[in-house]
Amino acid sequence: MNNHYDIIIIGGGPGGLTAAIYAARASKKVLVIENSILGGVMASTERVDNFPGFITSTGMDLALKMEEQALASGAKIEYATVSKLDCDKKTIELDDGTVLTANFIIVATGAGSKKLGIGREDELTGSGISYCATCDGAFFKDMPVAIVGGTVHTTTDAIYLEPIVSELTIIVPIDKMRGLPDQIKLLQNSPKVKIIYNARVTSVGTTKKGMRDVVNSFLAVDNNGKEYKSDIQSLFVALGTMPNSHLVFGQVDTDKSGAIITDNKMRTNKDGIFAIGDVRADSIKQIVISCSDGATAVCTILGSVVYSKK
Amino acid sequence: MNNHYDIIIIGGGPGGLTAAIYAARASKKVLVIENSILGGVMASTERVDNFPGFITSTGMDLALKMEEQALASGAKIEYATVSKLDCDKKTIELDDGTVLTANFIIVATGAGSKKLGIGREDELTGSGISYCATCDGAFFKDMPVAIVGGTVHTTTDAIYLEPIVSELTIIVPIDKMRGLPDQIKLLQNSPKVKIIYNARVTSVGTTKKGMRDVVNSFLAVDNNGKEYKSDIQSLFVALGTMPNSHLVFGQVDTDKSGAIITDNKMRTNKDGIFAIGDVRADSIKQIVISCSDGATAVCTILGSVVYSKK
Repeated sequence: MNNHYDIIIIGGGPGGLTAAIYAARASKKVLVIENSILGGVMASTERVDNFPGFITSTGMDLALKMEEQALASGAKIEYATVSKLDCDKKTIELDDGTVLTANFIIVATGAGSKKLGIGREDELTGSGISYCATCDGAFFKDMPVAIVGGTVHTTTDAIYLEPIVSELTIIVPIDKMRGLPDQIKLLQNSPKVKIIYNARVTSVGTTKKGMRDVVNSFLAVDNNGKEYKSDIQSLFVALGTMPNSHLVFGQVDTDKSGAIITDNKMRTNKDGIFAIGDVRADSIKQIVISCSDGATAVCTILGSVVYSKK
Repeated sequence: MNNHYDIIIIGGGPGGLTAAIYAARASKKVLVIENSILGGVMASTERVDNFPGFITSTGMDLALKMEEQALASGAKIEYATVSKLDCDKKTIELDDGTVLTANFIIVATGAGSKKLGIGREDELTGSGISYCATCDGAFFKDMPVAIVGGTVHTTTDAIYLEPIVSELTIIVPIDKMRGLPDQIKLLQNSPKVKIIYNARVTSVGTTKKGMRDVVNSFLAVDNNGKEYKSDIQSLFVALGTMPNSHLVFGQVDTDKSGAIITDNKMRTNKDGIFAIGDVRADSIKQIVISCSDGATAVCTILGSVVYSKK
């Protein structure tokens, strides 16, 4: 059966590609289905300094290396959009009508970050707008930055940034911060931190750095119409993420954000259906962790079952 | 306090070095203590093809890159042996009498593989003797290999190898195989597989490959003195592993093998004490998974507490 695979991986980010490397090296017939750009969010990340083994790299370069490695290992990669996934039958329908089946399906569809909704936001991502404090905070050591958001993660990201940067403006869309009281107190008491409540960022200013524009200020406005403007080197957007779990929604257990719940072997509650990377509940959303998820899922598949013979 | 650190990491394998990269990038004062060679078991691995981003690499090269990255990030690395670790006081005593303290301690001391105890075993490791089927199986595609051991993991490693290799001899030191009945049945029924019970490997034969000797046969003997000899390209040793957990043994929860039990955030049952990588219970013992453990431990530390100010 040409359209039957041992393992189909939906999503070609770092987790999906690592799963493909592990499955192909074990002589399994494995397919990665990617609907846009291999590498996922990583591919659009300008600079990655925290993936072990690469002192510094572009996300695209990492993606290309992982793609080459997956192909060299014997994995197949196809560009297509999955229109339907039946978790019980383990069948996948592509948007051109092709139907594929698999013994195991690994959902590696990632998550998107909620956007600010201001002008030039996409263009300036990586040039002073960032959606990941853990990834990019270190690039702004001793520089002034701002962070936007009102979730628990906004607070932990702010706690992450505070010791690194020279000044930290926190722009909170509601009238209070959420999170651990001691963390909020630390931020409120820090001489480096300024908190603006009931406010939203309306625009960023830019300056030329070499050939390109980079962020150098923000403009925010609060509910009373008062304006706030500050010089910054980076604006961190921490409004939350949205897991890309629509294909399995209602078929496997998800948390209240829609992220897929798995055990520590990456198994969902549905037999043969795994989830890895940013689409998982409680995912820390780091490249190396997604890769590890992919290796773990495949090792679980290989070790726990009597595999169908080829 | 010169001898006080935010985070001390005991062990400089891939997990420990990744933890150091993450901690240092968050502007934490972090020390890695290594007692032998940075990179741990990885450093002595001749060829690594399954670490994402590196199509092929030596383990030593990966270790050197991670070391450079940890140092570039601002971590400190010291070569010393920890003679005592007090998990309650979070103090570490080195063998020269130096006492160090930390807010958080990450135990990344790895695990050792049980050896066969035959002549030239260390010399031939990487030249036809391997302790990791998942890591090295793909290097012996369509070649005859043997595997030694009588544990559940021997069976899952044999299941991993069977589709890859041309012939698989399983040498079991006891009178039966352990593991899932269906997996054992598959191996017993496979035309590729020969199982020798109540036997042990007494020696391996070698041939010249370029400048060096590589394994080309094994000699085994069973309890009745009967000898078995076969041509093989690789001997996989799957006798089990021993976690290097003596420093914390009795202080934190361990499983019956002595491996440290953690939650999925790498927390042991003792406040402020984390464990990552091969020393953890249920560890799959893959480089990328140890790295992920290191990132997870540090993200947990940074996100869940109000950190002491520097």
